[in-house]
Amino acid sequence: MENLKIKSQILVESLPYIQKFHGKTVVIKFGGSTMKDKESEDSVIKDIVLMKLVGMRPVIVHGGGKDINNMLERLNIEPKFVEGLRVTDKETIEVVEMVLAGKINKNLVNKIQLENAESVGISGKDCRTLMCKKNYANGKDIGYVGMIEKVNNHLLRSLIDNDIIPVVAPIGTDIEGNTYNINADTAASAIAASLKAEKLIYLTDVDGIYRNFPDKDSLISKLTLESAKALLDEGTLTGGMIPKIQNCIESLENGIDNIHMINGNIEHSLLFEIFTDKGIGTMFTQK
Amino acid sequence: MENLKIKSQILVESLPYIQKFHGKTVVIKFGGSTMKDKESEDSVIKDIVLMKLVGMRPVIVHGGGKDINNMLERLNIEPKFVEGLRVTDKETIEVVEMVLAGKINKNLVNKIQLENAESVGISGKDCRTLMCKKNYANGKDIGYVGMIEKVNNHLLRSLIDNDIIPVVAPIGTDIEGNTYNINADTAASAIAASLKAEKLIYLTDVDGIYRNFPDKDSLISKLTLESAKALLDEGTLTGGMIPKIQNCIESLENGIDNIHMINGNIEHSLLFEIFTDKGIGTMFTQK
Amino acid sequence: MENLKIKSQILVESLPYIQKFHGKTVVIKFGGSTMKDKESEDSVIKDIVLMKLVGMRPVIVHGGGKDINNMLERLNIEPKFVEGLRVTDKETIEVVEMVLAGKINKNLVNKIQLENAESVGISGKDCRTLMCKKNYANGKDIGYVGMIEKVNNHLLRSLIDNDIIPVVAPIGTDIEGNTYNINADTAASAIAASLKAEKLIYLTDVDGIYRNFPDKDSLISKLTLESAKALLDEGTLTGGMIPKIQNCIESLENGIDNIHMINGNIEHSLLFEIFTDKGIGTMFTQK
Amino acid sequence: MENLKIKSQILVESLPYIQKFHGKTVVIKFGGSTMKDKESEDSVIKDIVLMKLVGMRPVIVHGGGKDINNMLERLNIEPKFVEGLRVTDKETIEVVEMVLAGKINKNLVNKIQLENAESVGISGKDCRTLMCKKNYANGKDIGYVGMIEKVNNHLLRSLIDNDIIPVVAPIGTDIEGNTYNINADTAASAIAASLKAEKLIYLTDVDGIYRNFPDKDSLISKLTLESAKALLDEGTLTGGMIPKIQNCIESLENGIDNIHMINGNIEHSLLFEIFTDKGIGTMFTQK
Amino acid sequence: MENLKIKSQILVESLPYIQKFHGKTVVIKFGGSTMKDKESEDSVIKDIVLMKLVGMRPVIVHGGGKDINNMLERLNIEPKFVEGLRVTDKETIEVVEMVLAGKINKNLVNKIQLENAESVGISGKDCRTLMCKKNYANGKDIGYVGMIEKVNNHLLRSLIDNDIIPVVAPIGTDIEGNTYNINADTAASAIAASLKAEKLIYLTDVDGIYRNFPDKDSLISKLTLESAKALLDEGTLTGGMIPKIQNCIESLENGIDNIHMINGNIEHSLLFEIFTDKGIGTMFTQK
Amino acid sequence: MENLKIKSQILVESLPYIQKFHGKTVVIKFGGSTMKDKESEDSVIKDIVLMKLVGMRPVIVHGGGKDINNMLERLNIEPKFVEGLRVTDKETIEVVEMVLAGKINKNLVNKIQLENAESVGISGKDCRTLMCKKNYANGKDIGYVGMIEKVNNHLLRSLIDNDIIPVVAPIGTDIEGNTYNINADTAASAIAASLKAEKLIYLTDVDGIYRNFPDKDSLISKLTLESAKALLDEGTLTGGMIPKIQNCIESLENGIDNIHMINGNIEHSLLFEIFTDKGIGTMFTQK
Repeated sequence: MENLKIKSQILVESLPYIQKFHGKTVVIKFGGSTMKDKESEDSVIKDIVLMKLVGMRPVIVHGGGKDINNMLERLNIEPKFVEGLRVTDKETIEVVEMVLAGKINKNLVNKIQLENAESVGISGKDCRTLMCKKNYANGKDIGYVGMIEKVNNHLLRSLIDNDIIPVVAPIGTDIEGNTYNINADTAASAIAASLKAEKLIYLTDVDGIYRNFPDKDSLISKLTLESAKALLDEGTLTGGMIPKIQNCIESLENGIDNIHMINGNIEHSLLFEIFTDKGIGTMFTQK
Repeated sequence: MENLKIKSQILVESLPYIQKFHGKTVVIKFGGSTMKDKESEDSVIKDIVLMKLVGMRPVIVHGGGKDINNMLERLNIEPKFVEGLRVTDKETIEVVEMVLAGKINKNLVNKIQLENAESVGISGKDCRTLMCKKNYANGKDIGYVGMIEKVNNHLLRSLIDNDIIPVVAPIGTDIEGNTYNINADTAASAIAASLKAEKLIYLTDVDGIYRNFPDKDSLISKLTLESAKALLDEGTLTGGMIPKIQNCIESLENGIDNIHMINGNIEHSLLFEIFTDKGIGTMFTQK
Repeated sequence: MENLKIKSQILVESLPYIQKFHGKTVVIKFGGSTMKDKESEDSVIKDIVLMKLVGMRPVIVHGGGKDINNMLERLNIEPKFVEGLRVTDKETIEVVEMVLAGKINKNLVNKIQLENAESVGISGKDCRTLMCKKNYANGKDIGYVGMIEKVNNHLLRSLIDNDIIPVVAPIGTDIEGNTYNINADTAASAIAASLKAEKLIYLTDVDGIYRNFPDKDSLISKLTLESAKALLDEGTLTGGMIPKIQNCIESLENGIDNIHMINGNIEHSLLFEIFTDKGIGTMFTQK
Repeated sequence: MENLKIKSQILVESLPYIQKFHGKTVVIKFGGSTMKDKESEDSVIKDIVLMKLVGMRPVIVHGGGKDINNMLERLNIEPKFVEGLRVTDKETIEVVEMVLAGKINKNLVNKIQLENAESVGISGKDCRTLMCKKNYANGKDIGYVGMIEKVNNHLLRSLIDNDIIPVVAPIGTDIEGNTYNINADTAASAIAASLKAEKLIYLTDVDGIYRNFPDKDSLISKLTLESAKALLDEGTLTGGMIPKIQNCIESLENGIDNIHMINGNIEHSLLFEIFTDKGIGTMFTQK
Repeated sequence: MENLKIKSQILVESLPYIQKFHGKTVVIKFGGSTMKDKESEDSVIKDIVLMKLVGMRPVIVHGGGKDINNMLERLNIEPKFVEGLRVTDKETIEVVEMVLAGKINKNLVNKIQLENAESVGISGKDCRTLMCKKNYANGKDIGYVGMIEKVNNHLLRSLIDNDIIPVVAPIGTDIEGNTYNINADTAASAIAASLKAEKLIYLTDVDGIYRNFPDKDSLISKLTLESAKALLDEGTLTGGMIPKIQNCIESLENGIDNIHMINGNIEHSLLFEIFTDKGIGTMFTQK
Repeated sequence: MENLKIKSQILVESLPYIQKFHGKTVVIKFGGSTMKDKESEDSVIKDIVLMKLVGMRPVIVHGGGKDINNMLERLNIEPKFVEGLRVTDKETIEVVEMVLAGKINKNLVNKIQLENAESVGISGKDCRTLMCKKNYANGKDIGYVGMIEKVNNHLLRSLIDNDIIPVVAPIGTDIEGNTYNINADTAASAIAASLKAEKLIYLTDVDGIYRNFPDKDSLISKLTLESAKALLDEGTLTGGMIPKIQNCIESLENGIDNIHMINGNIEHSLLFEIFTDKGIGTMFTQK
């Protein structure tokens, strides 16, 4: 009976958060190497389905990471380099697409459906959702690596409007039908901007942005566009933090109002983020 | 942090219940004298709004009780009797309607809206929702007491479909425009049957049906139509239990599959009922 | 046969008026003390249902007056005063709400339905239709008297679009759930402005605005915003005329194009107003 | 003022009739030789537009008569006969179609629109509304005279649903694209049956069915299917009455519940029929 | 088998043209005297139905010409003249309307339906599609000849949206219900502009605009607004060419982007125009 | 010019076929090893897009074959056998899914989109489109090979209704989230039955069913359910023919009315099938 009281209390406390985010689109980037283990992934899936059930409209964008590298290795595809930069050649992009759209993507769809929500896995090729051009690195051609030029979001909108959770593999295409690998963080950001999402959440394997990594006390809970830029300019951030913060700055500049970087390996970190005022991890806002 | 974990755990545990009742109509009879205090009423309102937010479609039917008697007394309206039966004359029904539709009804609407859900208070007169004929008691004319002949549910459906919580005062009318007082339990049952509700929940001031009231250990947690009738026929139930069980039997016979009698004065008893397998109080089912 | 000819002739003559107002919203303020007798009220109701049937979209806002005072007296609630101004305290506003929303309102709904049109009675609390703040009188706190800050018209629109005649009790609320009494003329004006009504009709107990009340010959049939202001400034109007003309000036300033003040006690005065070029009473226009 | 009172009284008296026929389809056969003069036709048109405005859904089917004969004469097309029966040959049917669909039809559309209702003139060829086969007379081929086999009513329904008054010329077609002249009374009946019309009204140049034509006192105000057949079998009816009563019997047998034969030359006879209990002319009912 | 290959090849080659014009409205002016024979007309009809089937939305505007003159002659209606200009008097306009709306119009509807597409024939009177004023010629009143003032296109849009091919007779009306004859080329142009048509195609009896008619080699395949005006100003065009080019210039100025003048007597010239890059005849474009 | 005439003639000849199949769903099984070369595949894609453009609603189901075996080989996954039957173990089904849903599927989507039609690639996992149970072979467990128990077609319907061409990988799932490989022919048949498709077309690498394979003259152009069964019972068919004919018999028994087996390596064989009376290959019908 005491348990029931606590339980009810907690459900009732969630009321204002449910109301706040009702009908809002939330784009969640996760998957691939950032997930420590199967349990963490399952916990994230449960959280996403709960978000869906209480009225939010989650969209998942996943990465690849280890699965792709494992497959490339098993297939004895040697990494190629141009002036020190790894090149995604024809053979490689085929494997990348196959693993992202045929394995990781459908695996996530499956897990969501085991929680009794409906899901459809797409790649950015379907309905030409992610239109790209080649992304040169310092002017070098590094192969089929894409930079998003346009998000055609009608397929995503149609799935969302039909109460289906879309799972998106970060594969793009162009008018000539080439296939491109896209950075999953960038894809999530472009999709969130196109859908005018309420929130963009990056599930990573760290707790957020640290002023002095890995000093736990230096975790920053809130950064504005201005303060994030200033922090980057200070030049004191350690390596791993730099691309993360750069990506969030870019997303803010894309017009997304709330970006969260949280640790996907903390059980139910997504729910902490949604159902508490304080949240966890680092939140980026315009001002 | 530990708290957060428990909180998340509880939210996640509610998933299957949310899924089970998503989009289902639940009619809740409560209000009036059964509510011990303002805190109990507020707790019930919070629970109903939570139910709404996680996708259920609650409909409230309320009673009157003490408020009506208070007002009749303040207005020095003497109760009249016909062969020992209290009569609802013209003067009385006007006060009954005024208190039910103008005070209790709008008060509940107000409370729901303070929890940020939309609500509209109607009486059975609006769009002729509750069409009645005179209900004679043992063949005696006891005035404007109605027996429901037909529920015109299009106003209720339209409110529900627009995500509004309807609050219904148990006032009926007939083709000549007479006003009738209707028993709130009966009104709730007729409305639930007409809306093909998933559940009909009676919030009362006892914990359920007791075999030997008030022996706490004799509380019955589940009764089928058949066993409820048998229990009634035994003739061992104490006075207060009899009309309650009769009303539930009638509702089962109206085709409602799940009827719950629970104690509205236990905080969040509604949530216990919805979000646990065992539930609390007494559940009536067809079989 | 001769009768039939006259009848047909009159029906045919109504054609251009029916066409002119087809689909147009007309807000009608009436009820309470302005109605001389039951016959007058019934006649008004019949006119409104006819308006509905030939394609207009009437909305009724009613007042209270005598019924409220009677009830306050019966309940021995002593009027309180602050520096000579009557105060609507907690006890009083509860009675006001009960009488307006529980008695007069449902009574009008009933009468409309007896003419076979559908009607729903609401107060400004339902779906927070009338949001208020406290209306101070010369800086004095006179209790729960409200000034409308916002009309949320989606409930009204939804009822109108479903061919239902809304009847509105002039009760408002605020974000904290307080209850306010609102002047019915002001409520009608705010609702008309919010619905962009074609016409706002005040049914009163005089024939319109008189230059020299009660000299019948001094009845003014048309006033523009400018001429109404000028007339008020002249300072020659008798007491009763002043608040009426002030209210119409305010409604014009709210953007309503056609405002009519007519005598509700003249049988079918509403139809005269709608179905003749000349109309009766006083018409206010922008120019 | 006295006039206004009468006027309002009459409008209010029309309420129950307006309610009764709201949203109901009424097929009216008129036009051609039955109209005594332009004034009669104008009066009918006004009545039809009034019916439309108060919520009925009129459909007009017109005949041809004199206009067709005049044109045939002017074009020196000699009538042909086969064993005493007039034959509608190729040359004749072209003139018939031209006059019906190009002159009378558009003329009626024009008149309706001058009363500010929207109208579209169609022939039974448009969207193959009236599909025919050749109608032999006593086994003789009398040319392009059609018997309706099927009414494709989707064009009519679409016009009606868009608040447009359809005017139908009684021209039919078949799968090979032949053109047929159809008896206008029969066409009206087939269309009414297909649209499940509430009423079928024949505007003629007599006051109804007379037992002993032209004895005014022998006018019959009501005939059931059974009594109409009996009357026909008596063999006492004069010539002109016989095809009229036969046609009404056939319409009843097509499943139309209410058929009225009234004199279109009595001003506003249509309104008398709709807006009085007694009606004028002869009414045919199933029972 | 070889035939099948060619056939398939041709169907596949039509793909890009089908895609280009999918869902686009194409207004086609044809009919009347420009059609050499029945075979040419049938061929045009087949082409139009094919256009409809592969997703275009054709609208036909037809002329009258010879049929009208024949009928006037047969009816012995003498042409009247005012200062050398032919006058369309009351008697004449009645014949014009009858032939256009009752004969040619329904004849085209019939032919389209024989190819199993749905069609409805309207005149500009229906739903007041073509609103006109009198068109004076050099200041002379030449009778019921209309100049289009406004196209009310909702009837046309509704037909098109319901997959029906509209056939329009160039008859107009005004607010007083007068009937006007309208130049069919002008009517087609006004309708195309109102519907924002992709293309306006004039099917004529010449191959296009010739610099030196009838020198085949001087056929001009493309003219911009500027070059068409310059050509006209040169003053070297022969008589028949001048009104044709003037009409196309006016259509360009109405905002239509693509106007084609092609020879309707070349079998399937419409398909050549739609399904080849080069097209046939003369194309007019803005630039 | 002569070419244009032939071209137009052919387009016009296609009219009746376009009309016949307008709006009809056609399920096409193709892909994988049956396609001789890239040119054949491209030709099929072009044909499908043409079918879509002229109003049909194609759905593609593809197989895998060589691509799967290549990948298994490259990954050094040794085929396993149970009593002579090849087993699809966990490792294998992962590769099968990856190749079908991540490579072949998206490759077809890409090719369709290069022809400017919209396409989405799904597997039977998405929205649980293909629900399976384990398919035992002669009672032996051969791993993740599925037998379809239910087709949930709402995702397919929604894509089709939005003018998108669905491409389906023959991967199924069950309530526990297992992944199954499904025979593509069987998947196409189940999908066609569920969508009540007009036609089911198997594109294979032979010309149809031969009585005496490979004697070209023994090709059978039409088989009814009865004659197909009889032919199978004769026992004279060669090996390759047997599963093909068995599958078509099963599809007929599933209620599909028209099944075609044609050679996908004949250029535009799909168009021959759709746009000629005779068709090519072997057609199976109920009777």
